[in-house]
Amino acid sequence: MSENFSMVAPHSKRPVNEDKIFAASRQAKEAIEKYGFENVINSTVGALLDDNGKLLVLPTVIKVLKNLPPEEIAAYAPIAGLPEYLETVKTAAFRECMPEGYIEAIATPGGSGAIRHTIWNYSEMGDYILTSDWYWGPYKTIAEEHGRKITTYTFFDENKNFNIKSFREKLNQLLKIQDRVVILLNSPAHNPTGFSLEISEWEEVINILKNFAKNKDKKIILFSDIAYIDFAGEKNKSRQFMKLFGNLPENILTIVSFSMSKGYTLYGMRSGAMICITSNKSIAEEFKNVGQFSNRGVWSNGTRSAMKILAEIFKNSELLSKVETERNVLKKMLNERAQSFVNEAKKIGLDICPYKSGFFITIPCNNPELVSEKLKKDNIFVVPLQKGIRFAVCSVSKEKCLKAPLKLLNAIKNI
Amino acid sequence: MSENFSMVAPHSKRPVNEDKIFAASRQAKEAIEKYGFENVINSTVGALLDDNGKLLVLPTVIKVLKNLPPEEIAAYAPIAGLPEYLETVKTAAFRECMPEGYIEAIATPGGSGAIRHTIWNYSEMGDYILTSDWYWGPYKTIAEEHGRKITTYTFFDENKNFNIKSFREKLNQLLKIQDRVVILLNSPAHNPTGFSLEISEWEEVINILKNFAKNKDKKIILFSDIAYIDFAGEKNKSRQFMKLFGNLPENILTIVSFSMSKGYTLYGMRSGAMICITSNKSIAEEFKNVGQFSNRGVWSNGTRSAMKILAEIFKNSELLSKVETERNVLKKMLNERAQSFVNEAKKIGLDICPYKSGFFITIPCNNPELVSEKLKKDNIFVVPLQKGIRFAVCSVSKEKCLKAPLKLLNAIKNI
Repeated sequence: MSENFSMVAPHSKRPVNEDKIFAASRQAKEAIEKYGFENVINSTVGALLDDNGKLLVLPTVIKVLKNLPPEEIAAYAPIAGLPEYLETVKTAAFRECMPEGYIEAIATPGGSGAIRHTIWNYSEMGDYILTSDWYWGPYKTIAEEHGRKITTYTFFDENKNFNIKSFREKLNQLLKIQDRVVILLNSPAHNPTGFSLEISEWEEVINILKNFAKNKDKKIILFSDIAYIDFAGEKNKSRQFMKLFGNLPENILTIVSFSMSKGYTLYGMRSGAMICITSNKSIAEEFKNVGQFSNRGVWSNGTRSAMKILAEIFKNSELLSKVETERNVLKKMLNERAQSFVNEAKKIGLDICPYKSGFFITIPCNNPELVSEKLKKDNIFVVPLQKGIRFAVCSVSKEKCLKAPLKLLNAIKNI
Repeated sequence: MSENFSMVAPHSKRPVNEDKIFAASRQAKEAIEKYGFENVINSTVGALLDDNGKLLVLPTVIKVLKNLPPEEIAAYAPIAGLPEYLETVKTAAFRECMPEGYIEAIATPGGSGAIRHTIWNYSEMGDYILTSDWYWGPYKTIAEEHGRKITTYTFFDENKNFNIKSFREKLNQLLKIQDRVVILLNSPAHNPTGFSLEISEWEEVINILKNFAKNKDKKIILFSDIAYIDFAGEKNKSRQFMKLFGNLPENILTIVSFSMSKGYTLYGMRSGAMICITSNKSIAEEFKNVGQFSNRGVWSNGTRSAMKILAEIFKNSELLSKVETERNVLKKMLNERAQSFVNEAKKIGLDICPYKSGFFITIPCNNPELVSEKLKKDNIFVVPLQKGIRFAVCSVSKEKCLKAPLKLLNAIKNI
């Protein structure tokens, strides 16, 4: 019996890395046991926690679930999703900013499933998928699982604005070697930086796409990841950019990924959707057919009860208003934590990525692994990224968010 | 703007077929509206329904869900699954028939997700996947979604036993052209026929695999689909065959797929697992690593609350016994319905596939589409398969199960 013997197919043999978030989170828990919660800053958790480290849940959402009749929990949903859910996600995603065009939706397990279907169905084996140099790690995992590669442009320019030049150049390069490009763009409240494109920056992005789309042999798929949109300011203002997805050339397909994970605190119920916007009716139908086939061919149907919850909430304006009121409390808390961090960082001269809203703040630095090891000795637990460290303001009290920047600065300086 | 214009990658362009089950089910509902429930036999639904067509749900399971603290519903589960769930699924799958070997589990959305990961990670692009000629349609969808093809052996011999000869021959052929073969074998209570391999038949299957495995260049992956096992007789007797998965050569990997859909009536909560049995520890570790990577790379994590429910049930013998008692009522009802159908079929000379237990009975016939159209005029709604029609005894009253065979016989005779 050999230790090197392997049963998986060659493409599935991958280096085994310990999950960094998991490892850091485990060590944080050990430190809390030893030194007490108040003496530890655990900023590894990517969910909203209260000041005592307990998960924050929108009570109305859970109440709606608990009031569902058993059949709405137990029964299969249709493969594409409950029809009323597929209607509701459009409202929930766009609110008053519905773009013009043909719009179809397919239920997916969170945003991850939407990324999977988009990459698998709209790019080819071996293709490059384009995203920014600061990006959510699983983009790479999803691409690699399916035999694709991630390539990046520089997210920020020297003024900490969206680096439109780098975006254009990189897309230009890619379109020279590929006839189709999937672009993953996470805004507003980008994970891990908290950056959001301004509406003028979005206009520039769309103009660039339109320009490239003049070559009708090229197909551009813009995947708009709005996972954190419900924590990115006023609901219609933060959605304004989606209006720009209407009336585009037919060889630009926009796919918006909706998720119930953050906005409805239903992380563990695995409910999201992919929503297409296109000016060509048959492309919308193709999207629907392909998504349905892929659902059946990967995970079958989605979590019915979560879909039903969203439909119930939007059917009843009183419920919706309750959910929004409850969410506003969390939003306010999140903003206060983030502002404490950002102001303190500015005061002491800690350089951070341009944060506007969302769950995370990122601090660029050399040797992030070493910095995060150093911080552990100070009972601060962060997630090391490739070019910096991620601090989850979503899960750390305002008081600790105020304390952290100086400790981070010292750790970075002293390596 | 062209109607033939397409945005999806070439491999994802697929013929669009109306879902036959969905179509038949819609027409059944229309007939019920028009003629009344008592005058329509809707045997299209693949879930346990009471005699009035209402979904049957195990009350204790729902009660456990409703008693969970909000955090256990809202929080993400770890990527591989809740550790206590991954332990519990082993007990729930094997009960007293745990095979000897290294056993690891990965949470997946139902059994479908387990099939996906097995096909993707243990076969190569373009490979043939082996199953019986009567098989659950989505096997094909899952294979095709991932660029694989289904090939089949003849399930039954002339005596309506497992066709071991055809199985051996087909596997032999495949191993001449492929170095690895994934075998999908759904037993007991096979969908769509209700067939189960006897223990002696299982022994023959395993002996054949062992024989082929003497060639160490060949890798055999036996995927044991036990989706319906909790409706296939006494719990340990129906599981006896899994003992045979222990102590096999290291180039045979067995993967058992567990699902909460049927046995716990949690169809819509999307919770299952894939469980490996291998005599080589490093193969078990590889299985765990590959499954975790694929989870992250496809749908991220699974439905936490469903995992928690299973763990709670098995932690508390009183709860477990309640669930089993409730399930036994459904099992008894299912058996009575099926026996009514089987006895009547025998009496009138309607030839059916060898049914032993489970949700479905299959009637081989020529031109199944035409037969099912004919039956619709008689207000009987069935699912046409490639070589016969599927009658879902799980969702039709005993009384109607008694009436149906004669009508089926007439429809088949008169085409």
